[in-house]
Amino acid sequence: MYVHTQAAPRAAAIPGIAHATWAGRDEGLQQLSLWRQTLAPGACTPPHHHDCDEVVLCQAGWGELHVDGQVQRFGADSLVVLPRGRPHQLFNVGPMALEIIGIFGASPVGTFAPDGEALALPWRS
Amino acid sequence: MYVHTQAAPRAAAIPGIAHATWAGRDEGLQQLSLWRQTLAPGACTPPHHHDCDEVVLCQAGWGELHVDGQVQRFGADSLVVLPRGRPHQLFNVGPMALEIIGIFGASPVGTFAPDGEALALPWRS
Repeated sequence: MYVHTQAAPRAAAIPGIAHATWAGRDEGLQQLSLWRQTLAPGACTPPHHHDCDEVVLCQAGWGELHVDGQVQRFGADSLVVLPRGRPHQLFNVGPMALEIIGIFGASPVGTFAPDGEALALPWRS
Repeated sequence: MYVHTQAAPRAAAIPGIAHATWAGRDEGLQQLSLWRQTLAPGACTPPHHHDCDEVVLCQAGWGELHVDGQVQRFGADSLVVLPRGRPHQLFNVGPMALEIIGIFGASPVGTFAPDGEALALPWRS
């Protein structure tokens, strides 16, 4: 099966984050994983990095990227480009949901805390 | 620079296809390339395959995927998942523009005709 549905995100184990895995190794991929996520107003990801390149497509809302000691604002006309291994954190800084698609250059996606400890993800990647 | 603009596609050298490269090696990536494309009504890609995994996100319009001797219809609620090396062709079969984002698990993206000959792309990948 090659055509799939862009499934709506559902509540995940991380507070304020809803998630749907759109594609990854379960769909026969080795080099790509796609996550559709919604961050509620005020929500943020933990600080983390990945063992692969990442691009975040923003579809709606307002976010802030914290990376390299900088703060960069992004919105519905933005994409965030994060080469492999770059520690970062995303915040919803708007009054509405922040709607994003996380795109990763591997499947599964290794995710790590700032101290290097692997983070167990509550979804398939 | 981590935050980029989702640039609008512009006319490319392939008739009926407008293109914008959103991310790839020029943005410091090795494992991802993102292309935003518009296929005019009646337009199609050439038959081809890639040397990496691909996912096509459909944003608007109606398309047809030809793969493995099958024809599969897709629309704005669909994603097309194509593991590495799978020959395929995309057609706009609707009355409006087909708006898609092509996501690839490598940068640059190797693209090949059915006889195995490398296709020179008229855009950076």
